[in-house]
Amino acid sequence: MQNLDERSVTAAVLDQMAQTRDKRLREVMASLVRHLHDLAREVKLTPQEWLSAIAFLTRTGQACTPSRQEFILLSDVLGLSALVNLVHDGSGVEQKTESSLLGPFYRQNAPAMGLGDTIAKKAGGAELLVYGRVTDTRGTSLPRATVQVWQTDAEGQYDLQKYRGEAMDMRGNFSCDDEGRFYFRTVRPLGYLIPMDGPVGRLVAAQNRHGYRPAHIHFLIGAQGHRELVTALYLADDAHIDSDTVFGVSKALVVTPRDDDPQAPLKGMPAIRYDFRLGGAAGEGSGRVGADPSQIAPALAGE
Amino acid sequence: MQNLDERSVTAAVLDQMAQTRDKRLREVMASLVRHLHDLAREVKLTPQEWLSAIAFLTRTGQACTPSRQEFILLSDVLGLSALVNLVHDGSGVEQKTESSLLGPFYRQNAPAMGLGDTIAKKAGGAELLVYGRVTDTRGTSLPRATVQVWQTDAEGQYDLQKYRGEAMDMRGNFSCDDEGRFYFRTVRPLGYLIPMDGPVGRLVAAQNRHGYRPAHIHFLIGAQGHRELVTALYLADDAHIDSDTVFGVSKALVVTPRDDDPQAPLKGMPAIRYDFRLGGAAGEGSGRVGADPSQIAPALAGE
Repeated sequence: MQNLDERSVTAAVLDQMAQTRDKRLREVMASLVRHLHDLAREVKLTPQEWLSAIAFLTRTGQACTPSRQEFILLSDVLGLSALVNLVHDGSGVEQKTESSLLGPFYRQNAPAMGLGDTIAKKAGGAELLVYGRVTDTRGTSLPRATVQVWQTDAEGQYDLQKYRGEAMDMRGNFSCDDEGRFYFRTVRPLGYLIPMDGPVGRLVAAQNRHGYRPAHIHFLIGAQGHRELVTALYLADDAHIDSDTVFGVSKALVVTPRDDDPQAPLKGMPAIRYDFRLGGAAGEGSGRVGADPSQIAPALAGE
Repeated sequence: MQNLDERSVTAAVLDQMAQTRDKRLREVMASLVRHLHDLAREVKLTPQEWLSAIAFLTRTGQACTPSRQEFILLSDVLGLSALVNLVHDGSGVEQKTESSLLGPFYRQNAPAMGLGDTIAKKAGGAELLVYGRVTDTRGTSLPRATVQVWQTDAEGQYDLQKYRGEAMDMRGNFSCDDEGRFYFRTVRPLGYLIPMDGPVGRLVAAQNRHGYRPAHIHFLIGAQGHRELVTALYLADDAHIDSDTVFGVSKALVVTPRDDDPQAPLKGMPAIRYDFRLGGAAGEGSGRVGADPSQIAPALAGE
């Protein structure tokens, strides 16, 4: 019989997992066990700290509802979501638009809208026009590309927070015209404080972090034969543009609305122009680092 | 503005966490972020795998109840609980009894019993006597030491599983006599299959592991001025004695009941004799790698 010690226990665990039929599951779990054990040895994790971690994870799981995904939020504030996104993004070599995080507030089945409509059906605030084109990596238009958008309102709240899943606002699904063009109206989003009333928010507070994401508009763009693009545009003048709590900002995605853009398809309000380049092939999978919170448990229940 | 890539995102996260006021929280979280990011880079974790992990953790959290701790079970099957226990155990240098896992089935407030009582109030099975002495590391008796015991019944079930928290059986709290001696009756425990109906059980099945713990009796022993001892005795003839799913067995804790032990304080049944040596000092903390599941959330809610 083996007498396990601090080192040999890791080998014993890997040995027991070696018969995993799914090769990829075996590989990922082996790496997880090695890193988890290294972590515990490195910091000499005490029983009391271990118990605090168990309790933290339990509270995090129990804070999840169909309109709130606390584990995605945890992944976000630890920079894991951004990293998975960067690893995925780096798997192509083309000149496509950079991706960003889907975040915990995406919803399937947002209302379909016509070009020029406003997504601010209930919320007020400073009006803004967003327009541009969806193309492939060579700049060729992608007619009828779908553009899903969602954002906080002028007070920094998502509808999922404000209406707890009972109403939608500040989101809409558009279809580009025959030349791949889209335009829609909205109100200027406000920088957004991640939910601070749950276990993850309390961790961020204990870490002395401000907890804000700079103001941004989310995009999920699809076109036949191309890899779905998950990205966001960030407003340059936000005070937290350099210190996003979830590490989603990159230079190429920072925009400044223009007051007198002669190209803007609608006048009388500041306009943001952004052209999105889709790369890859449809078969590569969506690459959404995130999901509609209400879909997460049921979608995977059959595993 | 920083443009994050697969490497620099880790530094950005550590930088944001650098202002954590609690030095130990800063240290543990920094190590966690480094290992978590290394893991994601090492295996090139895909968005779909990441989402499966989010869903797995969510289901694990939602499977927790006052009578079930699925995150402790996860920690157990990944060998983390055993490792934390070994790290903690190794922090003393004395000849004390080896510790083992508390597991997810400990309960506070088990019934107080008199020496010689049986803990099998409802369950049937082959009777067994357990007796011994509680001493310090020099073998000096510890009068009135408290001995808490709990185990599965002859069918391999804990009361928490069988009665879902609504009744207690197969557990009891004893007080040693003036010479540190204890003895109690029980029935022979059966090897125990971890709960396979939850997310952790399904993981273990996917890993092609049998999911069994060898038959054992848990002990939590305390005496004034000594570090609390959390341990268990394992029955030598169990088929899974060499492949415990949660890595809790060590040679020194394996026992074989004797049919005709002349020293046994009660006759007519097989007897296990084991003397426990308590080390350390009371101030070191309990070192329980585990807790009563009903106490985990409320006990730490004030964090």
